[in-house]
Amino acid sequence: MKLSDQKTAEGILFTDQYQLTMVQLYYRVGLHEKPALFDHFFRDYPQYDGHVSGYCVNAGLAWLLDWMQRVRFRPEDIEFLRSQTTRTGDRLFAEDFLDWLGREGTFQSLRMRAIPEGRVVHPNVPLTVVEGPLGTSQILETALLNHLNFQTLIATKAARIRESARGGLLLEFGLRRGQDKGANAATRAALIGGADFSSNVGMSSVLGYLPKGTHAHSVVQVFMALGEGELEAFRAYADVYPDDCILLIDTIDTLESGLPNAIRVFEELRRKGHQPAGIRLDSGDLAFLSIQAAKTLDEHGFPETSIVLSNNLDELVIWQIITQIQQEAPRYGVDPDRLIQRLAYGVGTRLITSWGEPALGGVYKLVAVRGDEGWAPALKLSESARKVPSPGHKDVWRVYDHRGKATADLLTLKDEDPQQREEMLIRHPVDRTQSRTLRKDEVSEMEPLLKEVYAHGRRLARTPTIEEMRAQRQADVARLDPGVRRLLNPHIYHVSLSERLWNLKLELMKSAQRRH
Amino acid sequence: MKLSDQKTAEGILFTDQYQLTMVQLYYRVGLHEKPALFDHFFRDYPQYDGHVSGYCVNAGLAWLLDWMQRVRFRPEDIEFLRSQTTRTGDRLFAEDFLDWLGREGTFQSLRMRAIPEGRVVHPNVPLTVVEGPLGTSQILETALLNHLNFQTLIATKAARIRESARGGLLLEFGLRRGQDKGANAATRAALIGGADFSSNVGMSSVLGYLPKGTHAHSVVQVFMALGEGELEAFRAYADVYPDDCILLIDTIDTLESGLPNAIRVFEELRRKGHQPAGIRLDSGDLAFLSIQAAKTLDEHGFPETSIVLSNNLDELVIWQIITQIQQEAPRYGVDPDRLIQRLAYGVGTRLITSWGEPALGGVYKLVAVRGDEGWAPALKLSESARKVPSPGHKDVWRVYDHRGKATADLLTLKDEDPQQREEMLIRHPVDRTQSRTLRKDEVSEMEPLLKEVYAHGRRLARTPTIEEMRAQRQADVARLDPGVRRLLNPHIYHVSLSERLWNLKLELMKSAQRRH
Repeated sequence: MKLSDQKTAEGILFTDQYQLTMVQLYYRVGLHEKPALFDHFFRDYPQYDGHVSGYCVNAGLAWLLDWMQRVRFRPEDIEFLRSQTTRTGDRLFAEDFLDWLGREGTFQSLRMRAIPEGRVVHPNVPLTVVEGPLGTSQILETALLNHLNFQTLIATKAARIRESARGGLLLEFGLRRGQDKGANAATRAALIGGADFSSNVGMSSVLGYLPKGTHAHSVVQVFMALGEGELEAFRAYADVYPDDCILLIDTIDTLESGLPNAIRVFEELRRKGHQPAGIRLDSGDLAFLSIQAAKTLDEHGFPETSIVLSNNLDELVIWQIITQIQQEAPRYGVDPDRLIQRLAYGVGTRLITSWGEPALGGVYKLVAVRGDEGWAPALKLSESARKVPSPGHKDVWRVYDHRGKATADLLTLKDEDPQQREEMLIRHPVDRTQSRTLRKDEVSEMEPLLKEVYAHGRRLARTPTIEEMRAQRQADVARLDPGVRRLLNPHIYHVSLSERLWNLKLELMKSAQRRH
Repeated sequence: MKLSDQKTAEGILFTDQYQLTMVQLYYRVGLHEKPALFDHFFRDYPQYDGHVSGYCVNAGLAWLLDWMQRVRFRPEDIEFLRSQTTRTGDRLFAEDFLDWLGREGTFQSLRMRAIPEGRVVHPNVPLTVVEGPLGTSQILETALLNHLNFQTLIATKAARIRESARGGLLLEFGLRRGQDKGANAATRAALIGGADFSSNVGMSSVLGYLPKGTHAHSVVQVFMALGEGELEAFRAYADVYPDDCILLIDTIDTLESGLPNAIRVFEELRRKGHQPAGIRLDSGDLAFLSIQAAKTLDEHGFPETSIVLSNNLDELVIWQIITQIQQEAPRYGVDPDRLIQRLAYGVGTRLITSWGEPALGGVYKLVAVRGDEGWAPALKLSESARKVPSPGHKDVWRVYDHRGKATADLLTLKDEDPQQREEMLIRHPVDRTQSRTLRKDEVSEMEPLLKEVYAHGRRLARTPTIEEMRAQRQADVARLDPGVRRLLNPHIYHVSLSERLWNLKLELMKSAQRRH
């Protein structure tokens, strides 16, 4: 795409057409400046090929705020809208509306609260709350969902792979299978969610990380095509990178050619006073080959070299490899725990596409409008009760038990303070038969999750660094019950409504159903 | 992301770290300017939840060429590379290499041939062929794969949905579930592959399409929250868009509330001389509700209104809906064919993520290097024979039979002209027992598929418009055997090698295996 086109396609017109036609309708009937409240949340955890996740990791907010601060309706954007016609050839957007858009169509008038990036999050909990004139808050919908859905999706997948890889070094390698420039957002989200480094040079530069990589098969192929062989290719590589020498050993034959050649070169490096870094395996039975490579490397006095695995890895494949190593390494005289500790994982396609569930179904729903008599909660009724969002102004609290583990996210009305209550009835968000009493003495902490992040066209706080977001994610994951962290069949985390919020929802559903 | 960061992350550093370390190695051993030849191809058709596609639609080239023409190593990019260190704290990239990168690190020296966008393509056929100095052609790998893999993936999914939707209007609605700004590439690819329009305002503007959309549930909710109802919301919408009035009828209750309210408003529109455009259904049993809505609309004299369906549609869901309508509409007195003709499809998540297979495994493989004795074909051996790419300089021919249907894509060596041959033996690319004889009298046309597209830093031809690409795709799909177009269990299209190419591959594999 040309740069001038990119400005158009990534500016304020990075939205769905119906947002603009709806806002013209609001403008026409005088509702465009009515205060409105929208909640952003997702309804279900991702299910990777049917395996539901026990939690998500929130990400994407800083980029959304950058976008909001930057965009506005430029004259050329207005001109494009002016050129649109209806089926009968009339102009679709009227001039007075376009005037207003050009003048007022920015996000300056919105206030936003949000759960910070890197935090563990759960379904049906507002992750972002937007308050402001109906018109501009409606226009924001598409871009908000685009930015937050995708990064949260990828950060969540990365957190699962992190879980499965235990302490092993996790490298994000997916740029070639990524989604055009969206791959950069994925790299950022992967780092927030659990990757240690990325191969993506540009994004690593922007985020202050050292990009990582080894070499490709083509190095060996070039030497072979020119009449030399793998050994000469490895020697050349070791010559240029004596202290960072990781050799890819599967171009010809992993155990018969690559491994002995690598060891020869490692011995040469050692004689020159360098410490070889490791090998990479990119095909074949990675568990079996790791064991054989570890055994041979140990025998030749290279127990410190790492073994980088790649080739369609994800959380289940890594889990399987580790399990197989635990079972089989001893029979080859290899200590499985030591082998597992030297493994590193290059994860490409299956991280950057969130393999098994390539979209997060986050939504942005109107939950209240301010009418003449104050705020009126809004509901949509046709769906199953399960999909009816909680109405009105709310707060979100994370409830920790005496072990310091998070036991529930609690949604309350904004004027309730659950910290003051000796005990309170809390409700399942949908099933009216399920409720329980939360007593103050079983709670060690109630943490409010939503922070003020944006008002008057400006951020209200410094954007945390990626390192800070990672630390937050690590802390939050550590405070989950181990059952919730399980990769398969996790224990389902509780999201509950306060009694007052539950009653409001019920009452609104009843009265709306009566009316129609 | 901030704009200055975006320039870095989307510039020439939009690559994997190992490309740069490999190129420094080539530079150090004096191979960086050796002429090299890389093929880009994919090995397998996408498999959507296990259902293999019978063909792909090529896309992404124009954006890759835009990128190649724009980027270069800027001083700040070089500075970032200069700052990188090895494990022992030395500089990773040496100053002479960085000098060379800053001076020569552009794509000016490359020549590129490619199959044009919008063409139907098949596995193991070079879609893009890059020839040029080993250094710069290696650097290109990541960005080339990123641009071409993703758009080809999405164009292919769109073509399948197009197939399933028959002549129905197909609208791309996926921006909110897209991959950050990568969603714009997906919109473009969807239009190439089969979508008629998109809701994405910015990309539609850039590509010269009218963006499409209806309205969301929030319009109805706003009116309800302010004490009015669905009917008032519909009336307001119809007032502003009397000639483009498509009403979303499932906010409260589709058949009990939405449909009767829509019909009332349509009747009012008709009295004012306007032609109502249609309704949209976004939840529930879309086949059943379409039949009921069509019946009621017909009874009230609105047989021309369209019925827009949305909600997790993809090719299989649409197929199922159409099948169900064919079976059930007659029992309600509705003509199924007329109903199917008035359907339009808003396809979001499952198109923009290529649901069921979210990545295309396109690769970029070294196939020849020029040594002192001319071009030397390059092979990688460790993989199964299936994965060994065809070596050397090649051409690609599409062979049409007397029905005008494409029967095979034929790979030959560049100095062969299969059009001159009375008969030729053609080989299965992998299985040595499979071959057949192609006789001139069974062939109506042999079409060379690769075009020269880039040299000396410039495009060699005008970029076709999206309309031209769409026309090409339609023509190519029409020339496929119906069995190849099937959504499930398609007939497998033939990709064959000429006898000479096959013999070269065999000979190289043998000699390389002997050497190691």
